[in-house]
Amino acid sequence: MRTTTGWRAAGPTVLRRTSLERRDLRPDDIAVQVDYCGVCHTDLHALRTYDQHADAPLVPGHEFTGVVTGTGPGVTAFSAGDRVAVGNIVDSCGVCAMCEAGQENFCHSFPTLTYGGTDRRDGSTTLGGYSREYVVREAFAYPLSSNLDPAAAAPLMCAGITVWEPLRSLRVGPGSRVAVAGLGGLGHLAVKMAVALGATTTVISRSQDKRDDARKLGAHDLIASTDTQQMAAARDTFDVVIDTISAPHDLAPYLKLVAMDGTLSLLGYLGPLTVEAMDLLIGRKKLSSAGSGGRPATAEMLQFCADNGVAADIEVLPSSQVDVALDRLRRNDVRYRFVLDMSDLD
Amino acid sequence: MRTTTGWRAAGPTVLRRTSLERRDLRPDDIAVQVDYCGVCHTDLHALRTYDQHADAPLVPGHEFTGVVTGTGPGVTAFSAGDRVAVGNIVDSCGVCAMCEAGQENFCHSFPTLTYGGTDRRDGSTTLGGYSREYVVREAFAYPLSSNLDPAAAAPLMCAGITVWEPLRSLRVGPGSRVAVAGLGGLGHLAVKMAVALGATTTVISRSQDKRDDARKLGAHDLIASTDTQQMAAARDTFDVVIDTISAPHDLAPYLKLVAMDGTLSLLGYLGPLTVEAMDLLIGRKKLSSAGSGGRPATAEMLQFCADNGVAADIEVLPSSQVDVALDRLRRNDVRYRFVLDMSDLD
Repeated sequence: MRTTTGWRAAGPTVLRRTSLERRDLRPDDIAVQVDYCGVCHTDLHALRTYDQHADAPLVPGHEFTGVVTGTGPGVTAFSAGDRVAVGNIVDSCGVCAMCEAGQENFCHSFPTLTYGGTDRRDGSTTLGGYSREYVVREAFAYPLSSNLDPAAAAPLMCAGITVWEPLRSLRVGPGSRVAVAGLGGLGHLAVKMAVALGATTTVISRSQDKRDDARKLGAHDLIASTDTQQMAAARDTFDVVIDTISAPHDLAPYLKLVAMDGTLSLLGYLGPLTVEAMDLLIGRKKLSSAGSGGRPATAEMLQFCADNGVAADIEVLPSSQVDVALDRLRRNDVRYRFVLDMSDLD
Repeated sequence: MRTTTGWRAAGPTVLRRTSLERRDLRPDDIAVQVDYCGVCHTDLHALRTYDQHADAPLVPGHEFTGVVTGTGPGVTAFSAGDRVAVGNIVDSCGVCAMCEAGQENFCHSFPTLTYGGTDRRDGSTTLGGYSREYVVREAFAYPLSSNLDPAAAAPLMCAGITVWEPLRSLRVGPGSRVAVAGLGGLGHLAVKMAVALGATTTVISRSQDKRDDARKLGAHDLIASTDTQQMAAARDTFDVVIDTISAPHDLAPYLKLVAMDGTLSLLGYLGPLTVEAMDLLIGRKKLSSAGSGGRPATAEMLQFCADNGVAADIEVLPSSQVDVALDRLRRNDVRYRFVLDMSDLD
């Protein structure tokens, strides 16, 4: 086994620096020195629900970038020194219809998650990117363009692909009218990507306070969800509404904004959803959801971001301040994503 | 005013034969001798919820065919003697974005319903097709091809257009894989139309009992929703699932049948809908609903049915047996649509 250092859960809001084991490289594995790891809402959720008496430790982190430090004998796509990015999936069955369609995120036997997942070969629990090294199958690592800042690129690997998937599958492009509800980690990337795809892009926010922020991200307009006149005027005007609000909320006002044959895509809250059939029926609107993406879409997204200068707006903290990052994320005090600098683990 | 005869509500399950008034023809009106009127679930619902102390009588019926008997001076599309069909919408504002897009069924100021609606010019309550004559704007009447039997065509005007809209807007055609859940008035027409559009069509029914019926309608297969093995084997295999079940039910098993990027379209139950976000997320599935259609789609649907020999499987009863039809519909004892013959009102 290889040893590295990382941050493991020691309580719902506490992480402790610890020594961790990584597997020896299999033929198709690469070892990655983790330089930057984004802090995702999923990490908060995992900590909150982690059973302290579980056999396996919890090490969060599933959007990270770094450098290849070693390769298994069968590896063909990477060499030591290559810049790489890894997201929230590190393996899948490879043979089901979804894997064959390049949608490993929908693998029929469930994809192996980057942390808290079960390794398909040795049954061990995966430990995440809040650590200095990660060992991963080369198929689930992606070359990171030199055009992208490795810290700002880290959040592309979870938040980025999660918003990219619906934007692409709903064919957003020049002429599309896109609204983005909620301006956090997901939302701000949705705005940047929609704008870069050529869409007329509007932010939906609780108040007008974020108007300047929205403009800086490239948005063309902002609608205050509390302003009934503004909301009424915007009825039926967006081909795609990307809803990144992470708390349960009434979907009806957002469905009303969707244009004829358009779609409300829910990314932020993944619990039970309730809508009135009539709110879908009138205007032939659709409800969908999204999260993560397959290998082809992830590679495509990274290329698009490199070509168009899209990356996350981030606040970088040394990994020793992970507790601060998690606490501030809990209070939504971040514009727009925390990224941990792992070099202090050396 | 003109006088005619029809059936008006005299209690939640009772209709009485009565004399009714119809307006004098306006310049763009036609008078229609109603020959056949379908009996729709909506009629049951309207009777159940009708306030006996309301000022206006309730005369149900919103899918009917007949012959033009008179035309206003401005009418250009019809002459006396023409065969016509009328559905559940008889007017709309004509100027909103939805009307301009030919989706009068989504008119922003609400379309005028064929019965229980409010006439846009004189404010009177509309009285439906359970009567011998109807007066309607020519724009909301449709020529009825001589290829179509007028009795079997009547249900096309509500049930038919309601299933046609999602099939067309979801681009069902040769190669599409369509499942139809529920084999009643809506469902049997969905099967016929999907088959005629070239789709491989499967019926989802509670048991195997309807296998022969499904085959007779042209379906290629039947899956029993109670057979967990069959349902599991059919996971992710349908581009479009048309759900015509009229009672509230768990949508999860039907969403599971939807293929990658496919759609579950709910036509039968129009109350609040609850789904798990993960059931939409995994496979990038969509939820939609449908009901009625605009003028262009209605005309297109009638032409398609005339060209392809599609019409409802019906049981014709004299209008004096309307109570029998409603009672049997209430108990789902119909294959697949009752149509009232109005000639006994002469």
